[in-house]
Amino acid sequence: MNSQVPHLQTALSGPLYKLESLLLSHQADIECWFRKQFKKTPAPFYASVDLRNAGYKLAPVDTNLFPAGFNNLHPDLKPLAIQAAQSAVTQACPITDGVLIIPENHTRNTFYLENLCTLQEIVTLAGYEVHIGSINPEITETTKIELPSGKVLTIKPIKRQGERVGVDDFFPCAVLLNNDLSAGRPAILEDIDQTLLPPLDLGWANRYKTHHFTHYQNVAEEFAELIDIDPWLISPLSLQCGPINFKERTGLENLAKAVNQVLETTQKHYDQHDINCKPFAIVKSDSGTYGMAIMSVKDSEDILNLNRKQRNKMASAKEGLVSEKMLVQEGVYTHETWEGAVAEPVVYMIHNQVVGGFYRVHTGKTATDNLNSPGMHFEPLSFEGSLVSPDQSKDCDATPNRFYAYGVVARLALIAAAREIADAKQNNAQNHIEDTSLEA
Amino acid sequence: MNSQVPHLQTALSGPLYKLESLLLSHQADIECWFRKQFKKTPAPFYASVDLRNAGYKLAPVDTNLFPAGFNNLHPDLKPLAIQAAQSAVTQACPITDGVLIIPENHTRNTFYLENLCTLQEIVTLAGYEVHIGSINPEITETTKIELPSGKVLTIKPIKRQGERVGVDDFFPCAVLLNNDLSAGRPAILEDIDQTLLPPLDLGWANRYKTHHFTHYQNVAEEFAELIDIDPWLISPLSLQCGPINFKERTGLENLAKAVNQVLETTQKHYDQHDINCKPFAIVKSDSGTYGMAIMSVKDSEDILNLNRKQRNKMASAKEGLVSEKMLVQEGVYTHETWEGAVAEPVVYMIHNQVVGGFYRVHTGKTATDNLNSPGMHFEPLSFEGSLVSPDQSKDCDATPNRFYAYGVVARLALIAAAREIADAKQNNAQNHIEDTSLEA
Repeated sequence: MNSQVPHLQTALSGPLYKLESLLLSHQADIECWFRKQFKKTPAPFYASVDLRNAGYKLAPVDTNLFPAGFNNLHPDLKPLAIQAAQSAVTQACPITDGVLIIPENHTRNTFYLENLCTLQEIVTLAGYEVHIGSINPEITETTKIELPSGKVLTIKPIKRQGERVGVDDFFPCAVLLNNDLSAGRPAILEDIDQTLLPPLDLGWANRYKTHHFTHYQNVAEEFAELIDIDPWLISPLSLQCGPINFKERTGLENLAKAVNQVLETTQKHYDQHDINCKPFAIVKSDSGTYGMAIMSVKDSEDILNLNRKQRNKMASAKEGLVSEKMLVQEGVYTHETWEGAVAEPVVYMIHNQVVGGFYRVHTGKTATDNLNSPGMHFEPLSFEGSLVSPDQSKDCDATPNRFYAYGVVARLALIAAAREIADAKQNNAQNHIEDTSLEA
Repeated sequence: MNSQVPHLQTALSGPLYKLESLLLSHQADIECWFRKQFKKTPAPFYASVDLRNAGYKLAPVDTNLFPAGFNNLHPDLKPLAIQAAQSAVTQACPITDGVLIIPENHTRNTFYLENLCTLQEIVTLAGYEVHIGSINPEITETTKIELPSGKVLTIKPIKRQGERVGVDDFFPCAVLLNNDLSAGRPAILEDIDQTLLPPLDLGWANRYKTHHFTHYQNVAEEFAELIDIDPWLISPLSLQCGPINFKERTGLENLAKAVNQVLETTQKHYDQHDINCKPFAIVKSDSGTYGMAIMSVKDSEDILNLNRKQRNKMASAKEGLVSEKMLVQEGVYTHETWEGAVAEPVVYMIHNQVVGGFYRVHTGKTATDNLNSPGMHFEPLSFEGSLVSPDQSKDCDATPNRFYAYGVVARLALIAAAREIADAKQNNAQNHIEDTSLEA
């Protein structure tokens, strides 16, 4: 049986691991389960998920609700993305004929701008009028930027009229955030009556990673029951810890304790599954996405012995936000390599569909390192070579589709994100009821 | 800009024709227009459209609402089909968790059975429980058929309980017809309260091709206005004629007149567009899909001079149905060849999406012949070779995407089919009102 997610090449080329085979053999049940999950809890407009594949274990380590690498997807996969975008907009805002995209404030990061351009193309080809409205105060007039690809991106300053935001005379019902709001909740977006995708509360100004991973743990347990596996095989232990102030060295003992707890629990799981590896933990800010503030530690003593430079690094977070609460997460080895360098798959989804993926590759890192750091590069994934030649098309069902497993685990994280959004909406509704009762 | 429809290889390799370029350069407007059309008139569950590409002209010549070549699509495209199937079922029947497929009665045509198997896989991987329930009286118990691909197809006898049809204890809300009902309306399907896709009235027992092409003509005119072209460039002249009885030679003079009219009008268009070709007309049954009853004529005298064998051939139609009304249609040259043999593209759609295509190739035919006849074979279309190699992915926007034009014209025919379905539903609703008032 052919898979629901695109049959993409992966860095690993050996036989399928037990977990991968198990997921492939349960495809019909799994797809039915996913469909029911997303019927219950609508999927976000889009998301990308970083995975680590240790072979014995395949788990998400980061779920990004503002994916910024659409330019890294293989062009062959664009029809999938366009089709999914049409479903996503229709579900979120059936009446709209236009979509306003609010980008990050970067104006010189051409990688980001190429992503933005691709995203605009995808939504345009889904049949919508699309304009880009920036909240960057430096954008005061229509700005055209020529990109390395030769494409020209047009960014306009956003403006507010009553309870709507837009550009020029374009104030569509749907507004798509491609800005993770690390700098806080922009006042111009508060209380708009347009449909904001995802809601404001899902920006890093409000969101905690541990909240996501708590939901993920529940999703993983429900899914593990469906296919009868230990949920640990698809989920990383995650603890929230803090507040921690690295500069002033407060809270470090608690952090060391949390690291110890994660390492010990991981060791128990390793023993149970006969895994002969040394556990490690990842310490990162519980909010925000800034790659620098991530540490890989194999011993809780490492935390207590941090030097000043290391502590300063952990204290720096994106756009000046101080990271206070930390996420201590079980480290998952990546046993994938791309031309000799360690690699981790990143899966892109729009609506409830996998629309592609790529590898994040880092030539200067090891299997226990965070790869989202300067020096990384991306390898877009195309369809498996064997499928492209018509002669071999009859054998397609025989080709092990390793990428299917990635698409499954990434969509489990997508369900967790969908539940985060449902929580945020419910909280907002409750706050609104409380506001109303105060008024009455 | 990358296209909304898959970037597939085509038989033609020269530079794009003017019409193809024009469609490509209007993509954003075209996709927006399609989205609005399908919002107004929901697309059928699926359809396939046979196209003829003369270069100066690209037109549909047959729209099949019961496509039977899913096995001929390239496996790489399956994720597109699965995603579209999920949208199609959700739109038609949001509450269902299962789909019953009603197949053709063929039990020995392994090509058809491979198609059925692929269709079942697609809907299963969209997350639904799928069973095949046959109306073939020879199927009296669960029948397993091993196919050349190694897959095993399970067909069960359909049964009716109250106002529902199903197999065993499976009576889902959605029932998908993959049987064109050439043999008539099966009593077991009358007045069921499940959602039948497409409705019973769209089977060949009720449907006329001219009805479809009348709708198509309107769609083509609306679309032609959008991109400012002569609608003739995308639509074939189509006249209904009859009743004709070939065996008894009644009505042949009228048929010859209709042929003459089509040839003369075509010549006027050729003159207007400076086309140096000899017009020809296609005469086929106005209902049914039986490939034998199709004639290509260049002179109305040919009709009057038919010999007995030719008349017998025209009189034979699928499953004994006598073809009485005929469609006389402008012939469109196919200037595409596949390894030297004439070829015509067939585009597959699920819901409102293009999900793939293939070429129908016939080594024994010419540019004016009907290719849907014994001796034809199929060439599945994969993604353009140039796109598969990551090195060249940056150039993708430069590759002319000839297949885009095919996807556009096929979807115009899909809109016409959607309007046919809307008509049928409205007529049914009116009949129901009349029934009720008679009762009252």
